[in-house]
Order: sequence, then C-alpha cells, then structure tokens
Amino acid sequence: MTKLEIATAPMHRLCKKAGAERVSEKAAQELAKVLEEIGIKIAKEALDFATHSGRKTIKSEDIEIATRKALEK
Amino acid sequence: MTKLEIATAPMHRLCKKAGAERVSEKAAQELAKVLEEIGIKIAKEALDFATHSGRKTIKSEDIEIATRKALEK
Repeated sequence: MTKLEIATAPMHRLCKKAGAERVSEKAAQELAKVLEEIGIKIAKEALDFATHSGRKTIKSEDIEIATRKALEK
Repeated sequence: MTKLEIATAPMHRLCKKAGAERVSEKAAQELAKVLEEIGIKIAKEALDFATHSGRKTIKSEDIEIATRKALEK
C-alpha cells in the first residue's frame, strides 16, 4: 500500500476515546493502515452488492451487509 | 456514538480505490462509523497490551497484536 487515505490525527483521537494517554506516531500510522485495509475490503464487498442490485452507486445498506460479511470471515 | 472522528472524504476515496464509481454520502458516513467502531475496539485491546507491558504509550506492536485479537472474535 502506498499513500494512506486515512490520516493519523483522527487515529490519535480514536485512541484517546479508547482511554489511551499517549500514542506513538507509528502506532497511529499502523491503525490507519489496518482500518484502510478493512475499509477497502468492506467497500469491495459493498460494490458487489450494489452491482448485483443493478446499481452503480454504493448505498449505506450495501455497507451494512458488506460489513457483516467482511467481519465474519 | 456522537461525533465521528473519521471524516467522510477519505471514505469516498477508499470506495474509489475499491473500484466504486459512485458512493452515497450516507454510505460514506456508514463506512466511517463502522471503521471508527473497529478502530476503538482495536485501540482498547492495544491499550491493554501497553498497560500489561508497563507502558502508558500505545506502540505499533500493540496495534498489531490487538488487530489480530480484535478481528479473531
């Protein structure tokens, strides 16, 4: 993976929300990478559902069903 | 969950990376919500590992092991 779409600043805030006092920059980058990989996996599943329904637009219900499917595996 | 830390613009870009032509704004919001929930889950596990190692700082190895653990369940 080259450039990440998810920035590290929101990752730091997520870790704070989870109760962390401090988060290294490399840890924030790692979390962004992991969430990006999961996000792309979900988006690919969602695209399959949209295409199967004869749509070119991914809708929120595609994301919902794709999330259940992607996280089951 | 109130305000999301992850913005919708990067979610649109993730879906494009996954091959989607169009993504509704609600779908981008849903994807941000899902990734935020997974991110907080991983961060909480990572904090447990950091604390167990006597650290207050989450490091990238904590994120790595927490990801494996969080996605197994």
